[in-house]
Amino acid sequence: MSDRNEPAAPRVGVVGLGAMGLGMARSLRTAGYDVGVHDLRPETAADFARDGGTAFATCGELAAAVDVLVSVVVNAAQVDAVLFGADGAADRLRPGSVFVMCSTVDPGWSAALEGRLADRGVLYLDAPISGGAARAASGELTMMTSGSAGAYALADPVLEAMSSTVYRLGERAGLGSKVKIVNQLLAGVHIAAAAEAMALGIKAGVPAEALYEVITHSAGNSWMFENRMAHVLAGDYTPLSAVDIFVKDLGLVLDSARPERFPLPLAATAHQMFLQASASGLGAEDDSAVIKIFPGVDLPEPVEA
Amino acid sequence: MSDRNEPAAPRVGVVGLGAMGLGMARSLRTAGYDVGVHDLRPETAADFARDGGTAFATCGELAAAVDVLVSVVVNAAQVDAVLFGADGAADRLRPGSVFVMCSTVDPGWSAALEGRLADRGVLYLDAPISGGAARAASGELTMMTSGSAGAYALADPVLEAMSSTVYRLGERAGLGSKVKIVNQLLAGVHIAAAAEAMALGIKAGVPAEALYEVITHSAGNSWMFENRMAHVLAGDYTPLSAVDIFVKDLGLVLDSARPERFPLPLAATAHQMFLQASASGLGAEDDSAVIKIFPGVDLPEPVEA
Repeated sequence: MSDRNEPAAPRVGVVGLGAMGLGMARSLRTAGYDVGVHDLRPETAADFARDGGTAFATCGELAAAVDVLVSVVVNAAQVDAVLFGADGAADRLRPGSVFVMCSTVDPGWSAALEGRLADRGVLYLDAPISGGAARAASGELTMMTSGSAGAYALADPVLEAMSSTVYRLGERAGLGSKVKIVNQLLAGVHIAAAAEAMALGIKAGVPAEALYEVITHSAGNSWMFENRMAHVLAGDYTPLSAVDIFVKDLGLVLDSARPERFPLPLAATAHQMFLQASASGLGAEDDSAVIKIFPGVDLPEPVEA
Repeated sequence: MSDRNEPAAPRVGVVGLGAMGLGMARSLRTAGYDVGVHDLRPETAADFARDGGTAFATCGELAAAVDVLVSVVVNAAQVDAVLFGADGAADRLRPGSVFVMCSTVDPGWSAALEGRLADRGVLYLDAPISGGAARAASGELTMMTSGSAGAYALADPVLEAMSSTVYRLGERAGLGSKVKIVNQLLAGVHIAAAAEAMALGIKAGVPAEALYEVITHSAGNSWMFENRMAHVLAGDYTPLSAVDIFVKDLGLVLDSARPERFPLPLAATAHQMFLQASASGLGAEDDSAVIKIFPGVDLPEPVEA
């Protein structure tokens, strides 16, 4: 940041210090930013700031202090609260600043949000993320983004500091969210399919480890099979991402397609499987616990320490 | 084969010179075997033998001349005809020889076949294959096998000559077929899910190339998405594996689970999608043509040469 010809680095803030947001804020700090943070749990924000950066008591105060505000909350309702709730950010962001929206939301809602912020002179990036908490912490997220050239001009160094890959999908807000929706459709169906296939094989008497070994080296493999069935082999359903996340995300996938009258037979079926799992009391377990909806399957037991 | 301490190489035959069987017979010839072959189309067998090996007019004559008979036909009915039809192999295979069954079949049927051959003193390997015609030709198939130690003792060098990976899943015939069934469940669901997701994204206005680029680098990826959606991008539905193959294979998956009263919600849904495609006249197109069941989607056009 010492080259006189470079523009000053933008002042950056992160709202929402959950597993993803905390990693992203840390990545920004590692990259040399003086990161402002806010979280509903003040002690989480204070903990972060102890090693550098500044904790703010409200979204509004944080918004007033930054050029780029990165929002990493759970869903559209929380994004709405960050911007338009009590002490919200929308009225405090200065004209020309950028709001970076990283949640998985309905693409139409995201596109409309761009307009609501434009009324206030605030720029917008539709920027859902993928990669999990470990990659968030190491600055190696994938971001699926779209938005105006002006928004990118200010936010680009911030995106690069948090990600190994930034997909720039066009000028229309909503494109990033559309790609994220497609990814969640596949991720959800693949987890449910992995569970269905693994349950069938184990029920038929194939040793679970052999099944995993063959499938992960065959045309039936998926990123999710390889990742999530390892949890099943270990008998470890500690939630990295919970069943109820896919109840929500596949619900969002279906909701986004319904106004277009677009049929999604596999997403609908997988959604019912996650609902079945949640209704059986498995909502807070790892999403691979959807395998437990299949009766009479001797799943691997956890290895004793 | 000149080392006096090595057992003599088994005499080997291949029945069924389709895309897979022809490649496998060639791999065996490349490995130094004097391969006997039979096909319902005599000219196909004669063509093969012109470059080495021997064409036989019937399954029975081929069976009488070999120690290991590799059967590479379309389904269980064809395996049955090879063995028990007119001029069939079952009564001509010498006691102690091995029948290697490479088709995708019901695991219970495969297990029963072992017993029918044992009555004649013939050994059996349940040995479905995976990998496609190109890998068959280069001796790089994956084989999912199970059977007795005696069967492996004779057939092992033959399996190794045809494959880059031979999974040995246990002594019980049927285990190989069970794993193959699980693989086909995943392969079929993943193709249909790739089609559903890609159709949704294109309908929503995401450029198809961008969607492919992002998904193949994200958690939503699968082996089948990466392989088959390349056909959709190219607008090329020349069948490498046809829609009707998955009408058959997912039907087999469902049939194999029904006697156990085991539910397969995603396999059942994907099967309906392939049936819908077949009923629409797409049965002989590449299996990626299942994407054409989604209406109102502007699929990429073939690139003109």
